[in-house]
Amino acid sequence: MTITGDVMEDFSQWFHSILEEAKIIDSRYPIKGMSVWLPKGFKIRKYVLRELERLMDKDHDEVLFPLLIPETELAKEGIHVKGFEEEVYWVTHGGMKELNEKLAIRPTSETAIYPMFSLWIRSHIDLPIKVYQTVNTMRYETKHTRPLIRVREITTFTESHTVHETYEQASQQVQDGIAIYKRLFDILAIPYLVHDRPSWDKFPGAEYTFAFDTLMRDGKTLQVGTVHNLGDTFAKTFDIKYEAADGDHRHPYQTCYGLSDRVIASLIAIHGDEKGLVLPPLVAPTQVTIIPIIFKDGAEDVLYKANEIKDILKDGGFRVSIDNRDLRAGKKYYDWELNGIPIRIDIGPRDLKNNKMIITRRDTFTKEECSLSEDIVSNLNSCLSKINTNLKEKAWNFMREHVVEIDSSDKIEEIVLNGNVGLIKWCGGYDCGKEIEDKTNLDILGVQGEAKGECINCNKNAKHTISIAKTY
Amino acid sequence: MTITGDVMEDFSQWFHSILEEAKIIDSRYPIKGMSVWLPKGFKIRKYVLRELERLMDKDHDEVLFPLLIPETELAKEGIHVKGFEEEVYWVTHGGMKELNEKLAIRPTSETAIYPMFSLWIRSHIDLPIKVYQTVNTMRYETKHTRPLIRVREITTFTESHTVHETYEQASQQVQDGIAIYKRLFDILAIPYLVHDRPSWDKFPGAEYTFAFDTLMRDGKTLQVGTVHNLGDTFAKTFDIKYEAADGDHRHPYQTCYGLSDRVIASLIAIHGDEKGLVLPPLVAPTQVTIIPIIFKDGAEDVLYKANEIKDILKDGGFRVSIDNRDLRAGKKYYDWELNGIPIRIDIGPRDLKNNKMIITRRDTFTKEECSLSEDIVSNLNSCLSKINTNLKEKAWNFMREHVVEIDSSDKIEEIVLNGNVGLIKWCGGYDCGKEIEDKTNLDILGVQGEAKGECINCNKNAKHTISIAKTY
Repeated sequence: MTITGDVMEDFSQWFHSILEEAKIIDSRYPIKGMSVWLPKGFKIRKYVLRELERLMDKDHDEVLFPLLIPETELAKEGIHVKGFEEEVYWVTHGGMKELNEKLAIRPTSETAIYPMFSLWIRSHIDLPIKVYQTVNTMRYETKHTRPLIRVREITTFTESHTVHETYEQASQQVQDGIAIYKRLFDILAIPYLVHDRPSWDKFPGAEYTFAFDTLMRDGKTLQVGTVHNLGDTFAKTFDIKYEAADGDHRHPYQTCYGLSDRVIASLIAIHGDEKGLVLPPLVAPTQVTIIPIIFKDGAEDVLYKANEIKDILKDGGFRVSIDNRDLRAGKKYYDWELNGIPIRIDIGPRDLKNNKMIITRRDTFTKEECSLSEDIVSNLNSCLSKINTNLKEKAWNFMREHVVEIDSSDKIEEIVLNGNVGLIKWCGGYDCGKEIEDKTNLDILGVQGEAKGECINCNKNAKHTISIAKTY
Repeated sequence: MTITGDVMEDFSQWFHSILEEAKIIDSRYPIKGMSVWLPKGFKIRKYVLRELERLMDKDHDEVLFPLLIPETELAKEGIHVKGFEEEVYWVTHGGMKELNEKLAIRPTSETAIYPMFSLWIRSHIDLPIKVYQTVNTMRYETKHTRPLIRVREITTFTESHTVHETYEQASQQVQDGIAIYKRLFDILAIPYLVHDRPSWDKFPGAEYTFAFDTLMRDGKTLQVGTVHNLGDTFAKTFDIKYEAADGDHRHPYQTCYGLSDRVIASLIAIHGDEKGLVLPPLVAPTQVTIIPIIFKDGAEDVLYKANEIKDILKDGGFRVSIDNRDLRAGKKYYDWELNGIPIRIDIGPRDLKNNKMIITRRDTFTKEECSLSEDIVSNLNSCLSKINTNLKEKAWNFMREHVVEIDSSDKIEEIVLNGNVGLIKWCGGYDCGKEIEDKTNLDILGVQGEAKGECINCNKNAKHTISIAKTY
């Protein structure tokens, strides 16, 4: 079997096919929208989480809250519950018995966490609180589901929750959250646009929402992360109060921000090609594969050298393997490509004689001869770093080329449906914004910056430059 | 606040108190039997899982299956579902809509995983399969719940599932599973008895079950791990078949084995004392705390040296912190004890002059002077290793002293209720075994070895030495 579907022409088929062929997940699980993480996919997930945790652990504490939320808690915050009531899975029975109170499987954990915050927070010295957890959450999606992108079980939801004395500190935390996510996306070579979501698309209960959007190869944007300023809305609802230094009792201000399986989806979707995965080195389960080219003569020497190189690289901190399966080289190359291993090393008897090995990069397929006397570790480290830079540049260039200024409302649909994010000028009016969306059947992603001139729709004074796109 | 309850006299109160005081979990979550992992507890959990994963990853693949199981799959294996039907949480609604089919929250994942195995396995070259996952599972416990010990959400269930061509290979895997768990418990200094569970207490659907039991300070045993040989029962139920080398199609043989939050419960319960946690070094969130003894004179020099020691230890791979809070030393010592940090280093101006520091062990409270010119890293490494050995010996000695041979049936209750595991001789008969349990109101843990002589209950020929105990 090979990957079916062209990355550009039939992205959806290609994405489904690569998940299957590269054994990332198995979507044949007998419940719609729920899939199995296979060993290879799980490893990518693990390394992505490791990078995220490294960033988070600098000034957040990791915690773990229960899966289930009592109906009374979920229902407390009116706007919030309204936003999720169509999507919540309800547990109604324990064994043969009906429960006294229905329990919601968390769609997100504000209403699980904030009642505990109200117990934890007494004084200003308890603040700030910055915690995060990586958990499974559930959403009863009625739309068409799609592995890792639109699922009913989000298996990898890393949600952060912070509490601060003042609104300003919460606003600053929103910026800090954005900065952390930018660093993660840079590590993963995922390009992003950060949008201040329009009021009708913010997180239910939030003051405002910043969202990270990236662009898939089919021209549709994918929301891959969100950062919310919650103001003191939830603090009031859940009766969270602290005694300030001046003795006053006040409600603190909160933020929350989260990432999901979609980070891994975009990682795969953005870098992959017709031959398979192309993985950023830091999250590749195997970073280097060594393929010994074996003939009858000198096989032992080649294997010995291959193992020696493996040991040197392992000691140097690389995730490295030798492919010494009894298969022809073509099949091994095929697997190397499919699995997106950043670097392939070929070494045969002739190379040995010439004291060299051949390094091939998965991202460019360029080959390089490398002396065996040189510092292999430092050579390969610099090669991995070049790969990351190249992946990042390529991906950013692709996205930048597809962000297009549009100055006339009758061109919006054509340009966007041609695979672009449109930049348009907008007056900032709610009705006008909704009208743009309705007319074009597209989504306003939010504000990217200030604007002068005329609103593209109502011709009033423009306030913002906003992005408009077809979204997942 | 301090820890209430004496470890030996009022173990239950002590255990509850230490979880609260040392901020391991918060059990005030508004659903019975579900708790929050606090930052410190979460770190211990993380390091325990790290050790377990290190052992598992040697020849298992980590995977992740969905949380929910369709009713039809759960119900397929009759004996299995019978064992869990009283305990399963049922999801019946998605949003406002009733689901077409009820979904069970996994109580354990056989019926989630094995339908996929039937898709994955075609030929003998697909075998063996050895996978594991760490997930949250749910059991609707009707008994009295107890944090980390008897819970409704098992937050940390590491379950392994393997598939083999032959029954013998599955039996061997059971032994391999036992060996892995023994290594983990040794790392955690948790003593154990391995029992072949009686037929009426094996895993629902298994051929036989080996279980790890450890002894709590109150004389009750706690099951901390199980390893099951499933034979081909599930393979038949879920239509798992492979084509053997000879072309025949056969059902493979399976095993499964699991550990839960109880590993962390026993870690805390077995080593802790009236002053707080005592943690095995490998899983201690902080392994060394440095307390600079500050007076007006020479404070700068002391802090400089303390930081230097910290850096040396950090580079040496220790998890180390400096407690330079503006508090009196007594409060810092109190926290050091409560948090179970294996090693405390005191360093003051007089020590500096004498070119030494004082090392205090949390497990024994013994102090040692240590020259600052010596190799600190190797000194402390050997100290940590001594701590682990001591914890292990102490815990094993306590358990061994409380495993008592009993030769007369009228002594069983008295001896066991006095805080011991009783060793008795048994004929092996089902009715006789159940009679022993009924008469004494105790539990037979299972077979420990062969026996000669008379059954303690029916006086027939004894076959086995079995353990009898009060259990959690």
